[in-house]
Amino acid sequence: MKNIPQATVRRLSLYCRYLEQKEREEQAYISSQELGAGIGTNAAQVRKDLCFFDRFGTPGRGYPVGFLRRRLAAILGIKGQSWRVAVIGVGKLGGALVGYGGFNRQGFEFVALLDSDPDKRGRRYSGLVVEDSAGMETILKQREVDIAIVTVPAVVAQRVVDRVVVAGVRAVLNFAPTTINTPVGIQVRNVDLAVELEGLSFFLINTKQADHH
Amino acid sequence: MKNIPQATVRRLSLYCRYLEQKEREEQAYISSQELGAGIGTNAAQVRKDLCFFDRFGTPGRGYPVGFLRRRLAAILGIKGQSWRVAVIGVGKLGGALVGYGGFNRQGFEFVALLDSDPDKRGRRYSGLVVEDSAGMETILKQREVDIAIVTVPAVVAQRVVDRVVVAGVRAVLNFAPTTINTPVGIQVRNVDLAVELEGLSFFLINTKQADHH
Repeated sequence: MKNIPQATVRRLSLYCRYLEQKEREEQAYISSQELGAGIGTNAAQVRKDLCFFDRFGTPGRGYPVGFLRRRLAAILGIKGQSWRVAVIGVGKLGGALVGYGGFNRQGFEFVALLDSDPDKRGRRYSGLVVEDSAGMETILKQREVDIAIVTVPAVVAQRVVDRVVVAGVRAVLNFAPTTINTPVGIQVRNVDLAVELEGLSFFLINTKQADHH
Repeated sequence: MKNIPQATVRRLSLYCRYLEQKEREEQAYISSQELGAGIGTNAAQVRKDLCFFDRFGTPGRGYPVGFLRRRLAAILGIKGQSWRVAVIGVGKLGGALVGYGGFNRQGFEFVALLDSDPDKRGRRYSGLVVEDSAGMETILKQREVDIAIVTVPAVVAQRVVDRVVVAGVRAVLNFAPTTINTPVGIQVRNVDLAVELEGLSFFLINTKQADHH
């Protein structure tokens, strides 16, 4: 399963979420057309994405909603699986992420909060205390952290990720607006709010210009 | 400029950020190899992306760092341009976004905070007071909001975006974990933290399985 494109994995998450909704509405089967429309893609893409894994559909009836949802959750590793998460850099954004309840429900459990700022140490978020990031390597190893969420300033992000990788963490969700380099076998996902806002800015400025023609 | 792929626009943001760094380091020219490596792509991609707009490079010397950075900032609409932003749903995440200082520097100015929860109304974030979202359409129009950041629960997100669009806002940054449908001419960008975490989960579960072989 290692050669699945990231875009496919992303759509699997979206299918999963849409199927949850349909399950709540007690819909038994769903066509690839409907599933595609639900997440903004087409039927051919849905069939192609699901073919990476298995044959799920029944000709003429579509996919069984509950079964497909459970299979996708298992494929994504969010069913009967718990991931241990550390937040490094507990500023406003880091604190908000810990406080957001949605992750726990999906099997992501916060087990460590680290910050280099003495003023932030000792603060509590959802029952966890902010600890000194000087002890990062030891803490990440002892608590068997699977995923590090990095919300530190851009200038120190690479150094922080280097230390996270040394501590044996293989998955990083990076919010720092910079490019992070890691060795093979480590996955970094970037959530770059500035990039998204600039994308909207680009759209606005170009469609505005179009209005003047 | 309307047929530029979103992936290109995204890379323009990353080039811009990397060039800022090189400008601070007082580097005068940069090759497409170096610029590509800086953001994790290759020289051919850099040349292809920049060709959409203009000929920037000088054969044998590469691109002039400061000039290219300023041109890209202008293309992205983040130079000498200010965008008026409203946050709808001022929970933990919404509040953290307003408090984050980075956006202002790039020309994104918060002008309205709206929430339907009476308990949240009257709270202050960075000098702005949370107002009743019942008056959303009027407030968004009067303050000439360009971009709406939507951080409401998934079940109400579509309804909120429908109202935002009616109020004349054409760009939406959606944090609600759901698919939003909008008319042509409106751009929605999704920041889905659960999708990113599930992508990491998928990576961990599949590489773990690989370890057992």
